[in-house]
Amino acid sequence: MEKWVLAIDLGGTFTKVGLVNRTGDIIGEKVYDTGAKLPYKNFLTKLENVVGELLRTHGKDIDVVAAGVGAPNANVNTGEMENPPNFSWGERVPLAKSIEEICNLPTTIANDANAAAIGEMTYGMAKGMKNFVVLTLGTGLGSGIVINGKLLTGENGMAGELGHVNVDPYGRKCNCGLTGCLENYASVTGLKRTVFELISEMPEASSLKDISFNHLTGVMIAEAAHNGDPIALKAFELTGEVLGSKMADSAAHLDPEAFILAGGLGKAGDLLLNPTIASMEKNLFIAYKGKIKVKISTAPSAHAILGPAALAFHSLLDHS
Amino acid sequence: MEKWVLAIDLGGTFTKVGLVNRTGDIIGEKVYDTGAKLPYKNFLTKLENVVGELLRTHGKDIDVVAAGVGAPNANVNTGEMENPPNFSWGERVPLAKSIEEICNLPTTIANDANAAAIGEMTYGMAKGMKNFVVLTLGTGLGSGIVINGKLLTGENGMAGELGHVNVDPYGRKCNCGLTGCLENYASVTGLKRTVFELISEMPEASSLKDISFNHLTGVMIAEAAHNGDPIALKAFELTGEVLGSKMADSAAHLDPEAFILAGGLGKAGDLLLNPTIASMEKNLFIAYKGKIKVKISTAPSAHAILGPAALAFHSLLDHS
Repeated sequence: MEKWVLAIDLGGTFTKVGLVNRTGDIIGEKVYDTGAKLPYKNFLTKLENVVGELLRTHGKDIDVVAAGVGAPNANVNTGEMENPPNFSWGERVPLAKSIEEICNLPTTIANDANAAAIGEMTYGMAKGMKNFVVLTLGTGLGSGIVINGKLLTGENGMAGELGHVNVDPYGRKCNCGLTGCLENYASVTGLKRTVFELISEMPEASSLKDISFNHLTGVMIAEAAHNGDPIALKAFELTGEVLGSKMADSAAHLDPEAFILAGGLGKAGDLLLNPTIASMEKNLFIAYKGKIKVKISTAPSAHAILGPAALAFHSLLDHS
Repeated sequence: MEKWVLAIDLGGTFTKVGLVNRTGDIIGEKVYDTGAKLPYKNFLTKLENVVGELLRTHGKDIDVVAAGVGAPNANVNTGEMENPPNFSWGERVPLAKSIEEICNLPTTIANDANAAAIGEMTYGMAKGMKNFVVLTLGTGLGSGIVINGKLLTGENGMAGELGHVNVDPYGRKCNCGLTGCLENYASVTGLKRTVFELISEMPEASSLKDISFNHLTGVMIAEAAHNGDPIALKAFELTGEVLGSKMADSAAHLDPEAFILAGGLGKAGDLLLNPTIASMEKNLFIAYKGKIKVKISTAPSAHAILGPAALAFHSLLDHS
């Protein structure tokens, strides 16, 4: 019987659950409110109902062998969410253990970006690759590093936090408490902050000067850039410059085959890609110049459960 | 019969050869001029003589099973030295193949810092560790990264070039052609450059103002610092600050258990260690704060062949 996995994408707002096979087919996908500000127990009760219904409806004819979960601040080694921001579930949330009890399936958890990296290797742009980095450029910047075909987890299960490498010690304040972290420059939020810095500096007319910070979106900035808006164009250029220079530093650590850019900011396509590649190549140590691919992920965000699904299949390999 | 390996430390000036066992005992060590500016063939002829004599004298009673070589710009995947600086041996030197032919032993090569990392894991400060980074702070800055007990080699065999992560895009020119690479700040040469920058800025009396750049050594700067020299003290402080901040960036990639500082600059001890740890902790992402050890290697440089020896034993594990 074909093997399927239960895949769960646990986000700050919505949780997505579905069954996925090795080729990426999805059945029975459900989306519901996570309830991050309600007690953890409520989340588990809801999950138990949703998963129960899913397995009753679809589980009779297929072999569901494992569960994979992507969640904020998930530690792949301990199976816990550690101090997840914007959640009221406590400092250490025993997510893997809870889900194992509910589903009676071996459960692997990882943070969203780590799950995305395994997803790209299994179903996406990184098929056949063994050494690569996925950068998820959304509200923040997450990363997943794959080495010799395995997720890099590190000594404490927390490797791959490239959102917090330093761009400028006197730069932008970060939510994490540090100053100048990469995610304040290379993310949708970072792009917005760059637009506002440029508005403060550039006298040129720009449609972006009619929009407040809280109303501004990445899509608006991309549209303005496509219309030739000087501030929007400059903002993408600077974002790519910062991102590319830090990718060059990552290359000096990892010697990867590719960087894959995912998340909302990736949708900007060449607006982001061209200055990023130019800056990376300019800053690369000679041993790596011209050797590293940079690609934009084509995974639709509707398929957020493919990462967790791939994680579950990947963990089966580890234990076989 | 106890297993021994042939260990070769190929440096720009001297080559060291010896036989080493799993506990780090060394027999028959020889040191001779490398002849980096003479033809490659001369080096091989000399090596063949030295190794032949070594094996005739000591090889009868022991089982020599492999060779390990540390060499500049050695690519662990291809077995070649790639564009080694200050050598006239060509762009791609087939070192592993040549040594295999001469010694009739399976041969593994790696750059000096990678070999040092395996050496620290086998014989030194990193015994029992699985995830750590060795930084060799000498004329330049080399690095070796170990993940899950294995040397990180990367897609092209060139991972771990932390000497070339960027400190300042408008900073010091590097031999590699880039600007602002870490090795121009955190190495013996970097320390000297910092002293000269400080001499240009600080009016205070300093014994270092009597010494030319070419005569200045790391030992002199350390001695001046121990005597309270303000420029020497400030130079170590700034060196540690830069090094620590870049170690924090490395931690955000790798989540290591430890950084081990080796090479000439490491001999400065607390003068280097204290500002380095302070700066690393200040810049660490919260997930890593207080969790990462920083140690100075105690390996005497006289034991430069222990790294290559460990590399040879390590490669036996890979193939068993």
